[in-house]
Amino acid sequence: MANKGITPRSEDYSQWYLDVIDRADLAENSAVRGCMVIKPYGYAIWENIRNELDRRIKELGAKNAYFPLFIPKSFFSKEASHVKGFAKECAIVTHYRLKETADGKGVEVDPKAKLEEELIVRPTSETIMYDTFSRWVTSWRDLPLKINQWANIVRWEKRTRPFLRTTEFLWQEGHTVHTTHEESTKQVFEALDMYRDFAREILALETYGGKKSESEKFAGAIDTYGVEALMQDGKALQFGTSHDLGQNFAKVFGISFTDTDGQVKSPWQTSWGVSTRMMGAVIMSHSDDLGLVLPPVIAPIKVVIIPIYKDENKDMVMEFSRKIIDQIKGQVKDIELDEREYLSPGFKFNEWEKKGVPVRIEIGGRDIERNLLTVVRRDTNEKMSLTVNNISEQIVEILDEIQKNLLERSSKILQEGTQEISSYDEFKSVFKGKKGFIKAYWCGNPECEESIKYESKATTRCFSKEGNGKCIYCGKDSTQEWVFAIPY
Amino acid sequence: MANKGITPRSEDYSQWYLDVIDRADLAENSAVRGCMVIKPYGYAIWENIRNELDRRIKELGAKNAYFPLFIPKSFFSKEASHVKGFAKECAIVTHYRLKETADGKGVEVDPKAKLEEELIVRPTSETIMYDTFSRWVTSWRDLPLKINQWANIVRWEKRTRPFLRTTEFLWQEGHTVHTTHEESTKQVFEALDMYRDFAREILALETYGGKKSESEKFAGAIDTYGVEALMQDGKALQFGTSHDLGQNFAKVFGISFTDTDGQVKSPWQTSWGVSTRMMGAVIMSHSDDLGLVLPPVIAPIKVVIIPIYKDENKDMVMEFSRKIIDQIKGQVKDIELDEREYLSPGFKFNEWEKKGVPVRIEIGGRDIERNLLTVVRRDTNEKMSLTVNNISEQIVEILDEIQKNLLERSSKILQEGTQEISSYDEFKSVFKGKKGFIKAYWCGNPECEESIKYESKATTRCFSKEGNGKCIYCGKDSTQEWVFAIPY
Repeated sequence: MANKGITPRSEDYSQWYLDVIDRADLAENSAVRGCMVIKPYGYAIWENIRNELDRRIKELGAKNAYFPLFIPKSFFSKEASHVKGFAKECAIVTHYRLKETADGKGVEVDPKAKLEEELIVRPTSETIMYDTFSRWVTSWRDLPLKINQWANIVRWEKRTRPFLRTTEFLWQEGHTVHTTHEESTKQVFEALDMYRDFAREILALETYGGKKSESEKFAGAIDTYGVEALMQDGKALQFGTSHDLGQNFAKVFGISFTDTDGQVKSPWQTSWGVSTRMMGAVIMSHSDDLGLVLPPVIAPIKVVIIPIYKDENKDMVMEFSRKIIDQIKGQVKDIELDEREYLSPGFKFNEWEKKGVPVRIEIGGRDIERNLLTVVRRDTNEKMSLTVNNISEQIVEILDEIQKNLLERSSKILQEGTQEISSYDEFKSVFKGKKGFIKAYWCGNPECEESIKYESKATTRCFSKEGNGKCIYCGKDSTQEWVFAIPY
Repeated sequence: MANKGITPRSEDYSQWYLDVIDRADLAENSAVRGCMVIKPYGYAIWENIRNELDRRIKELGAKNAYFPLFIPKSFFSKEASHVKGFAKECAIVTHYRLKETADGKGVEVDPKAKLEEELIVRPTSETIMYDTFSRWVTSWRDLPLKINQWANIVRWEKRTRPFLRTTEFLWQEGHTVHTTHEESTKQVFEALDMYRDFAREILALETYGGKKSESEKFAGAIDTYGVEALMQDGKALQFGTSHDLGQNFAKVFGISFTDTDGQVKSPWQTSWGVSTRMMGAVIMSHSDDLGLVLPPVIAPIKVVIIPIYKDENKDMVMEFSRKIIDQIKGQVKDIELDEREYLSPGFKFNEWEKKGVPVRIEIGGRDIERNLLTVVRRDTNEKMSLTVNNISEQIVEILDEIQKNLLERSSKILQEGTQEISSYDEFKSVFKGKKGFIKAYWCGNPECEESIKYESKATTRCFSKEGNGKCIYCGKDSTQEWVFAIPY
């Protein structure tokens, strides 16, 4: 990694985001349009996120399974609004063989190997899963059925940005089947709450959660509920969604069950997912002009030790550093000693700062003499002198404080970034300026929503609460307050 | 799961394999040709396999990362023998959008959305990874580079069979880059040994391992080393491979490094992988006519308790069963109490037997009175009466014995299924009869190898040892003994 600088947020927020990702070695563009390479350090963060989320999904009672990458075109088209939502952005497999070109110098698609029916690379798995579910579900005893899949997904996006929007991404998709709408609705909220708790407890992100408008809902759902986070530039990031699919898919895929009363019925379904987009939310929310900042819980390296020595005291400093490592390791496993001899301590400070390692310990000859360690926490960049005694307990406490502090900061950003507004002029001027979330009444008319989007770039992010007010756009009476923001 | 029977091995081995998979709820066919659905129980086994292997791969020093699913056709073609090996079996993405048909009743590929360059769905990731590696590697300090990827892979196979050969499968692919051939060769063997140790210790499978012949090696490699297991029908299953890629890919993808001597050099590479095919090896090796048999280490449920009661003693039996669960849980986590009231104990015995749960505990009123438990181990189907005292320790011991016994059985099958043969008539008659592994001398001439394959269906599986003998086919002097078998 070249030790290059990072564009300040104030100068160019988009470039700052790309610089943070690049300098922290999280991901890079590949030769395939819109597809990124997730580098080892970025993938290690993803593994920590995935493992913790997987545990929580299993606690919800879902079991992991794996379904085909490809979806026959005919399946994909069965649910009318579903295909309409995804048809314009899907990768299509049409052939299954290459052959040598006539000049023998290359390969080309073999026209004889054309598929009878084209295959769609999954942009989501409702259709391929529910065809299978129709064979798994016959009786009320088979319900609820709760299946989760970790998989790669392809959506042919026009404009891409690492983690936030990529042609291929990694995700988790939960799919459940229930006997009643009451039970499936409960599941929709359980998934939503799981995501919000996960964001809070693991990613240190405070969010809004609520129903999406008709125009923003998932293609094929009755209702979609979204989790929304606020970025430092005042734009909103949709973090995850949970869908009430009603009986829409069950009916077209022929899923039915014999209920306790002997009647054959259509079950009620839900689906819910989060993706590598979460990584974008984490990076954008916590990082600063020095680079990545990570919540300790998901940091692949929680503590880095940088020895500072001259030739004459090198052995002593290294030995002491290893002793400190051994002390801390019992309580904090992900700790690293930076032993690279060809780099200066200053270069190393800089590099680990950019990589968002929560705690840095500097160990020099003078520190050892004084029985003190220089410790720097990455969230505040505060420098402390800590006694060697109980260093392990002190580090655990600091990591804990960082996790808490990041969540507090996130809560504050959300709170301070949210305004209740009833004047449309004010509404527009906020979105021209510092942006953020605006809570405002909306009459529910899609035309008002469309005009607001056209004029301010802001869209309804999610339902806020019942109340009494006037539609921010048309001024008609409204009973619903909504959260608006300019989305990523 | 319908409580259907299983075709005996003696009657139809292929059907037996399919029946075991179906009755154990491991996987099923999907609507997409050659692609299977891995069901929750099958996937839970895969997760256990994956987690343990992932730990070992990280111990080798490799780090996980993620690369694009799609490979540009031009990349794919860069290494001549590589593209030749995979061109005939790859799924090709040619378009990125669907549109409504003229009659408005369906969707069709939008001819306007044709890709300038077709994308190949990865059949393996050497080409897409090594393009990236060319940017990661500049100095000897960047080496060795060891990257591992868990991913889905697509190869358009003509004949498919669940787990053993499917159009899409899940796998792990390790890719390393080294400064010298000596070091990369060491890596090839380390990976090979890791797979063989893993097979032995975790999957309870004894294997052969060694170099493959020219005709059997990986497309683009200098040498391929394979791990070979023997199935109950006498056919061989290639379990995993490790490739010495030499400098072939480094040269075409422009990977180079400045060495300690200041010279710019081409590095040496390896790649190695195992897939969901391992699941097929496990199923085929250990199972019997009653259904699946699983090594306890990878069994998602290690112990099942089946309560046997009448109305009058139900509460007592259930309470006692829960007490036993609590006792065992401290030492064996994956334990389940089958509380389903609508099924008879006999039905349950049968079902869990088919699912290969290593230990079944039956708890009835009389057992409780006598302070004894009826315990059945799945590998031998032996029924025991165990005292309630120390039941936990006894169960741990039995699980351990099962794991050992399965490995011993596998070793015995391999040993007894291997013959050293020097007469070609005998060679052919073995492969017409009970099959197995044959160790025989081969002169190294591809024509002899091809004729042997044509006449007996047996191929060279891997190199056995140096020695002195006559080629089993042409009778010429040979210094190399090879392992032959009919492969899956």
